[in-house]
Amino acid sequence: MSNANIEATIAVLRDVLGERLSTGPSILDQHSHDEAYTRPVLPDAVAFPETTEEVSQILKTCSQHGCPVIPYGIGSSLEGHIVPIHGGITVDTSRMNKVLQVNESDLDAVVEPGVTRVQLNEELRATGLMFTVDPGADATLGGMAATRASGTNTVRYGTMADNVLALEVVLPDGQIIETGSRARKSSSGYDLTHLFVGSEGTLGIITKLTVKLRGQPEHVAAATCAFPDIESAVNTVILAIQIGLPLARVELLDELQMKGMNIYNPDMGLPETPHLFLEFHGSEAGVAEQVESFAALVGEHGGSDFQWATKTEDRNRLWQARHNAYYAGRSLRPGANGVVTDCCVPISKLSECLMRAKDLAAELGFLAPIVGHVGDGNFHLLILVDPESDDELGRAKDLVEAVNMLALEFGGTVSGEHGIGAGKRKYLVQEHGAAYALMGTLKKAIDPGNIMNPGKLVTLN
Amino acid sequence: MSNANIEATIAVLRDVLGERLSTGPSILDQHSHDEAYTRPVLPDAVAFPETTEEVSQILKTCSQHGCPVIPYGIGSSLEGHIVPIHGGITVDTSRMNKVLQVNESDLDAVVEPGVTRVQLNEELRATGLMFTVDPGADATLGGMAATRASGTNTVRYGTMADNVLALEVVLPDGQIIETGSRARKSSSGYDLTHLFVGSEGTLGIITKLTVKLRGQPEHVAAATCAFPDIESAVNTVILAIQIGLPLARVELLDELQMKGMNIYNPDMGLPETPHLFLEFHGSEAGVAEQVESFAALVGEHGGSDFQWATKTEDRNRLWQARHNAYYAGRSLRPGANGVVTDCCVPISKLSECLMRAKDLAAELGFLAPIVGHVGDGNFHLLILVDPESDDELGRAKDLVEAVNMLALEFGGTVSGEHGIGAGKRKYLVQEHGAAYALMGTLKKAIDPGNIMNPGKLVTLN
Repeated sequence: MSNANIEATIAVLRDVLGERLSTGPSILDQHSHDEAYTRPVLPDAVAFPETTEEVSQILKTCSQHGCPVIPYGIGSSLEGHIVPIHGGITVDTSRMNKVLQVNESDLDAVVEPGVTRVQLNEELRATGLMFTVDPGADATLGGMAATRASGTNTVRYGTMADNVLALEVVLPDGQIIETGSRARKSSSGYDLTHLFVGSEGTLGIITKLTVKLRGQPEHVAAATCAFPDIESAVNTVILAIQIGLPLARVELLDELQMKGMNIYNPDMGLPETPHLFLEFHGSEAGVAEQVESFAALVGEHGGSDFQWATKTEDRNRLWQARHNAYYAGRSLRPGANGVVTDCCVPISKLSECLMRAKDLAAELGFLAPIVGHVGDGNFHLLILVDPESDDELGRAKDLVEAVNMLALEFGGTVSGEHGIGAGKRKYLVQEHGAAYALMGTLKKAIDPGNIMNPGKLVTLN
Repeated sequence: MSNANIEATIAVLRDVLGERLSTGPSILDQHSHDEAYTRPVLPDAVAFPETTEEVSQILKTCSQHGCPVIPYGIGSSLEGHIVPIHGGITVDTSRMNKVLQVNESDLDAVVEPGVTRVQLNEELRATGLMFTVDPGADATLGGMAATRASGTNTVRYGTMADNVLALEVVLPDGQIIETGSRARKSSSGYDLTHLFVGSEGTLGIITKLTVKLRGQPEHVAAATCAFPDIESAVNTVILAIQIGLPLARVELLDELQMKGMNIYNPDMGLPETPHLFLEFHGSEAGVAEQVESFAALVGEHGGSDFQWATKTEDRNRLWQARHNAYYAGRSLRPGANGVVTDCCVPISKLSECLMRAKDLAAELGFLAPIVGHVGDGNFHLLILVDPESDDELGRAKDLVEAVNMLALEFGGTVSGEHGIGAGKRKYLVQEHGAAYALMGTLKKAIDPGNIMNPGKLVTLN
């Protein structure tokens, strides 16, 4: 990094972008951090390209001058992905925010990377189609692809890896490539689309995405359901998945999280025991059948108190509350910061893994509410930490490490959906072993100058 | 390749494998070709490893001596994938054929690469679970992963890309890596699993696979249905997919293919007009509802003659006949060889693409029955060619080229499921443009000695 000629880079880019290259303090500050609890670092400048060609010129220039490039969506990442830890040029894609095509017959859309998930669904509303991946934040699709994001209905409709058909990517040297096509499947060559999905801006910048759409369900039913304990809730879901119930959403919230939900959403008033938040999609008869089957399983596991959200606005309120779980959890300890884990394990191990994670949190004296995408085996501890206490922060890091080791012990992964960023690189060798070295080989082959989001995901020697 | 020290390689491998390294003429001959209509080439020897460690030793040795390595499943590939065009050691995985784990709670299985799809489903029968990907041949799972295979129920359950969770791979230098995990999703690092799925043995040898399983459907209904023309059949399916009908199988057979089916299956006796072969999975009520919705669409498009296969043995006979479509098609012209195309286009373009492909075949004077995985936009022309006629073969190649160009013109791909092998490399630059060079970059980075299945998929300078 020491050889980067930042000044020369900025001079060239200013010619290309004019006022759309900013070095203003508030802009730099805004791009110095994401939602993770990490030390902010300022970029040297922020570029706001409007076209793929501009992105290409930025990368060509940065490549020539060895200048780091940090792709930036909306700043909602959770592992310091967009912190410019070695300085450089942040490329903010917010002005590339057009929905370029909606192909209703083919159930796909072509979008620019700065389009957000809510924006896309608003533009789709009249078509009867929907884009399904829904992380908590209203993230950009470029960012979601870069972190291989998922959400509350991944159990039914998949992650970004399952929902991106094709990409346009600008490589570190400025070359523009297209990966995949609008065909639904292909055996034509290496799967470059999946290589860039989840690459966290370390291999290039995504400038266009073709994503799958689905028909809005004919009928939707949503409910919350209380359980005496976490095992009962998890076991209910395991059985439902085994018998093939096509649950559209099935989210676990532990008793602590429910307490936070009640504080943050004063109208909610649900009992403070473990809950499932559920949604069923299908025909009217199909949904009724799913609900009946699921209710039988709930009864067998001591669950009760189905609270149905029948009106659209009630459902929206329910899922908005779920999407705001992070803030609800933080309301358990006002002034605290949240440190979030993101393990994912085989579902048969989820209950045991969750209980041991809760025990670890208790042993270390933390309030740590849990939400879980239980159908995927993915759960988040929100560890509430006093930002003024180095001791607490140190213990929180110990807890994160212990929980991550637990997930690996159970054959899982340290990240179900948030990604690695700067925060989780230390776990990759343990998780991937020799395969981690291969990731470094790929990084070196595609980005030999190590300009793309350096210090994230892969650690080069 | 000229520097390969084949003799030294064979001497070392004979020490490692004993009689499981064969240079017998009939063994070499058996491994000289696949199902494609290409010139056979003998390998120098065939290795039959039984363990990952043996595969590692083979690759270490071949790597040291610059000796080509051709991974071999069961020889059912369709683009000359396993033809040793530069000689070398064929690694036949047929002795690595154990189902290692069936994790019923997690709906996954861990298998060795020589396990075939029929074998796996037989071993699963008692569990109530199934593995879904079903190419025509009873291929090995290692081979299916290597070519990113799919099948008749991909429209509902996905391709190998969607059904492989994790791999063990031996890299060209003999290093053993594990990609992915048994967790259902992960955002932990580059997606190496998808990189090896579809890499056609050019990056390493798959020695273990973790694959997704699904519950066997509670209720199944299968039928054939006749249409006045191809457009009506295709448009019926497009509408069904748009309204979200979860068709489990929907296969198109044109009038010529139906004629072949009747010759090859004398009991079939179906009218020789375009047909859909269909299957519906779900609860009893759910299947009834799907059938009702689909039948309404069929009626609107002039379809008729639902022939229901209600008994399991009737259904098996129906799908066996579909899986044997290749042989049925060839029976239209006894003694002819089949040259198969494998285009896949956005479904909205399928009807037009199919009709133009049929016209091209007619213009060039070929009998070319068509089957199509119509829900995916994927179709196969089976071009029937007199093996003694160089002229016909030349014209068949022209037809393949014209059809492939058509697919690209429609925004599709030259291979939906068969892969590239030796046969389709010339189309990759046209399909992928600059992205094809990136595939070469990846190949060079992972296999710098170019020992892995050289001459397939990527063309190195």
